[in-house]
Amino acid sequence: MAGDPVNISEFQELARQALPKMSYDYFSGGAEDEHTLRENVEAFRRITFQPRILIDVSNVDVSSSILGYNVSAPIMVAPTGLHKLAHPEGEVATARAAAACNTIMVLSFSSNCTIAEVASSCNGIRFYQLYEGGSKIEALGSRNMDPSLSWKDIGWLKSITSLPILIKGVLTAEDARMAVDAGVAGVIVSNHGARQLDYAPASITVLEEVVEAVAGRVPVLVDGGIRRGTDVFKALALGAQAVMVGRPVIYGLAAKGEYGARRVIEMLRDELELTMALNGCRCVKDITRSYVRTERDRLRSLL
Amino acid sequence: MAGDPVNISEFQELARQALPKMSYDYFSGGAEDEHTLRENVEAFRRITFQPRILIDVSNVDVSSSILGYNVSAPIMVAPTGLHKLAHPEGEVATARAAAACNTIMVLSFSSNCTIAEVASSCNGIRFYQLYEGGSKIEALGSRNMDPSLSWKDIGWLKSITSLPILIKGVLTAEDARMAVDAGVAGVIVSNHGARQLDYAPASITVLEEVVEAVAGRVPVLVDGGIRRGTDVFKALALGAQAVMVGRPVIYGLAAKGEYGARRVIEMLRDELELTMALNGCRCVKDITRSYVRTERDRLRSLL
Amino acid sequence: MAGDPVNISEFQELARQALPKMSYDYFSGGAEDEHTLRENVEAFRRITFQPRILIDVSNVDVSSSILGYNVSAPIMVAPTGLHKLAHPEGEVATARAAAACNTIMVLSFSSNCTIAEVASSCNGIRFYQLYEGGSKIEALGSRNMDPSLSWKDIGWLKSITSLPILIKGVLTAEDARMAVDAGVAGVIVSNHGARQLDYAPASITVLEEVVEAVAGRVPVLVDGGIRRGTDVFKALALGAQAVMVGRPVIYGLAAKGEYGARRVIEMLRDELELTMALNGCRCVKDITRSYVRTERDRLRSLL
Amino acid sequence: MAGDPVNISEFQELARQALPKMSYDYFSGGAEDEHTLRENVEAFRRITFQPRILIDVSNVDVSSSILGYNVSAPIMVAPTGLHKLAHPEGEVATARAAAACNTIMVLSFSSNCTIAEVASSCNGIRFYQLYEGGSKIEALGSRNMDPSLSWKDIGWLKSITSLPILIKGVLTAEDARMAVDAGVAGVIVSNHGARQLDYAPASITVLEEVVEAVAGRVPVLVDGGIRRGTDVFKALALGAQAVMVGRPVIYGLAAKGEYGARRVIEMLRDELELTMALNGCRCVKDITRSYVRTERDRLRSLL
Repeated sequence: MAGDPVNISEFQELARQALPKMSYDYFSGGAEDEHTLRENVEAFRRITFQPRILIDVSNVDVSSSILGYNVSAPIMVAPTGLHKLAHPEGEVATARAAAACNTIMVLSFSSNCTIAEVASSCNGIRFYQLYEGGSKIEALGSRNMDPSLSWKDIGWLKSITSLPILIKGVLTAEDARMAVDAGVAGVIVSNHGARQLDYAPASITVLEEVVEAVAGRVPVLVDGGIRRGTDVFKALALGAQAVMVGRPVIYGLAAKGEYGARRVIEMLRDELELTMALNGCRCVKDITRSYVRTERDRLRSLL
Repeated sequence: MAGDPVNISEFQELARQALPKMSYDYFSGGAEDEHTLRENVEAFRRITFQPRILIDVSNVDVSSSILGYNVSAPIMVAPTGLHKLAHPEGEVATARAAAACNTIMVLSFSSNCTIAEVASSCNGIRFYQLYEGGSKIEALGSRNMDPSLSWKDIGWLKSITSLPILIKGVLTAEDARMAVDAGVAGVIVSNHGARQLDYAPASITVLEEVVEAVAGRVPVLVDGGIRRGTDVFKALALGAQAVMVGRPVIYGLAAKGEYGARRVIEMLRDELELTMALNGCRCVKDITRSYVRTERDRLRSLL
Repeated sequence: MAGDPVNISEFQELARQALPKMSYDYFSGGAEDEHTLRENVEAFRRITFQPRILIDVSNVDVSSSILGYNVSAPIMVAPTGLHKLAHPEGEVATARAAAACNTIMVLSFSSNCTIAEVASSCNGIRFYQLYEGGSKIEALGSRNMDPSLSWKDIGWLKSITSLPILIKGVLTAEDARMAVDAGVAGVIVSNHGARQLDYAPASITVLEEVVEAVAGRVPVLVDGGIRRGTDVFKALALGAQAVMVGRPVIYGLAAKGEYGARRVIEMLRDELELTMALNGCRCVKDITRSYVRTERDRLRSLL
Repeated sequence: MAGDPVNISEFQELARQALPKMSYDYFSGGAEDEHTLRENVEAFRRITFQPRILIDVSNVDVSSSILGYNVSAPIMVAPTGLHKLAHPEGEVATARAAAACNTIMVLSFSSNCTIAEVASSCNGIRFYQLYEGGSKIEALGSRNMDPSLSWKDIGWLKSITSLPILIKGVLTAEDARMAVDAGVAGVIVSNHGARQLDYAPASITVLEEVVEAVAGRVPVLVDGGIRRGTDVFKALALGAQAVMVGRPVIYGLAAKGEYGARRVIEMLRDELELTMALNGCRCVKDITRSYVRTERDRLRSLL
């Protein structure tokens, strides 16, 4: 397969060619002026590395664990809906790709495939995206959430299940603290793929303040704008336990089905491995804050 | 009406197609190099949100009051001239649109329709833009104001009327304080649509310093660059009691007459409602400074 | 003359059409990558106004004086060479234009017309650009100056003439102080039209530090990048006694001869008058530092 | 030879025309998104000069010495591989060009010509790029280095040779100090032509912090993004003893063989001489920190 895409940008172009315009626009587009959509990607580009040299990186290990599950790399599949618009096999194909990569897929509440279909298709670890009230159709058409959902519902949810609950959409230190106080098992820094509130901050720009607010009490995950292994490295260096990847997996799925989705995850993993080697990190735990220079670091170093 | 425009940018394009080039250029253009014209819009884009999650926003109320008048939303029609260049019905159509939306229109001193014509056409609340000397033609051709107007004229104006007087064009804390000391009922932060002094600051960039100088003694309004409900939210968060919208209403009027002008106001109102929900605000009073991050906030957070 | 250009940008376009490419490129081009050439213009755009309102500006007076000479506006003609490449009448036409506008022209050492020719053509005030060694051709071809010129030559020059001596090319506070100590009559902040050292700072960005170093002991002039009356106002607000304009006058000369050169000066004067009115300044002395906001002001206000 | 290129950008364009696309892309491209590739060049553009005037620069001397070797200018040829892809004579031609310019060439470990071939072709001074394990092909294909190389290998290398050892790729103060402590003879600030780790910092942006860490104990060299004599001057002003130039020499070689490679070095030398004269520096030692203004200087001057 000589003409295989060599980066996610090429997968995106293949997806654009493969899909009806309406489907491609549905997956690739963002809210209103798409300011946050662009910023999710651009904000990563403003972070640079401070690589160390002459460290023996002949063996680099990218494996990690997330909430107690061992994964081949700290790269998860983010919840995104309607995978059958991208490929006839839908979420079943995506789930198989994630399982083949030995990583976790979060199944969207607006999945085309049922939980049962996905569960029976392979043995991967899966998380489920949950809402309690409001039909899927209405939510999708309006604001992709139940607008009456509030903190007290977290308490109720905890009372009916022993499963770990993660909160997705945290963008402020205040909400991060409230989430931890509410007893969640993890916090996901996200602006929902820039599909809801335009001019919400790029996820990576608020990750560090959430990490500081959480202060290690629960894991922090992040999604939004990850297109390269360098982006994964930057998120980990800023304190994320793992990243979640949405659109890239869809592009892989649309371009080449289960194989494409798998290649996307593998490419990110390989790029992460190379980024670790070139920075001088032998394992995921070696990736510390000192390897990246954010806008804050740059400004402070100038003053 | 399936092909209705879905945002103000689309209304602007329809207006461009509908109008003779000279008319469109008259409405859309700004002074000299159009630096301030672009900045009025761009400066809003540099402000981002700090949205809160898990607040019950199943009911969002965007109604407000301006100088004691109840309005359906804190969105007014700014004074702009020569509406008959945009549509044969001129300001009468715009006034009906404003009245239908239950909001306030400010009638320009260079209106094509007389005050009487506008007043008899519908029952809306209207403010009037006033100057005392200099013919309209001269003012329009040169600097859109009477160049001899000064603070002492405000005193004289107050002596002959009990109507509330608002000062439009305030861009500095010093003038804001002078306006309040002169006994005005309100202050309008404005660079007159970037049509007079190029390189005047974008209105939204000086709103906060005017608000601080006024210190709650009178309401502060703002116009210039508002194209989205997110812009309205940002202005309110920075202390404006309401915003005034000029060109967008003209574009609506030019594209689809009274219906178009009304749709523009309604769209901004709907977008404001969605923005409030996604930020976690249930009513206009919930919109506080903490929901937005300006350049100043960003820079301070970096240091 | 209905189709007259309405700004300097239009004159530049006419000049481009009127001249052989080589001549136009000679006048319009800058050193190497033309970074400083662009910066000279761009740096003005980063300065905004803080206009005051309700000041009676029905009479605005733009006249001024430079080194004791009364001028119709604080706008001089900078020394530029080879005017016959722009128009057959050469510097004689330019000098007549300057005299008609009642302002000062600085005659370049690489003028095509002799001092006698220019002097006999009209009665304007003129300054002369001087160097003492190195042929004109060599200087023009290499670095537009005598490379052996040094501070001790200023002393010698003062000993042989009672004419006032101005130093052009000052870009640092250190050299400004040395120039004043050497007894010059004035200092000209200039990077020589960005034609010599690329990546020299834009003149307007160092004007204020030169003004501070000079501390009022001699007048400070500035050239480089002035294309609008707003630019003239900004330079005056930052402490220049007057500005010098080079390329714009050449463009006027190339486009329409003496008439064009005159119109360029008049347009800048008219734009300065409008800028003063819209900022609330009645005369040149009213233009103070508080009317402009530089990058430094903006950054400090953010902190 | 009237049509000779007058700057490196023109040589690059000639090289693009002369080479098969694959070869040109190999030489001109960088890692992944080519962020660092662009930044290497752009970062120089953000540094401006603070030139001094009225200094006698009728004689400017650009000669210098590097590690005890006298050179005609502080401009070396950086190690780059596979010169036969650029020209059939390969590294032999490049070495002759460097020798003709009386400067030093660093021979790459992935040279097409053998050390013996290069050594017998001319009498220039040459340094050699060294690695100890990993085949050239693998290194080139993956990460252009032996991934197991570490600090302890420096100790071993020093034990087997009395030749001076320089470390290339230093981008942090920490590694600079470790290199000096390990007894190296010099430190080369480099991101390997932006061909390995994208989002590594532009070399020139970290030069000064490396120079401060080294504190004069050994010389510091720098490569990456040098396209003009102004860039060479900036690197020297920030503390480099010399610069190394990679792609420009390749472009010269591809465009016009040994003659082209020589012209590239000569042009940079001539531009450096002009830059020194226009800044007021008579010899390389005159180039001090005060002649340049970096982003840090600019920001500090604003505060």
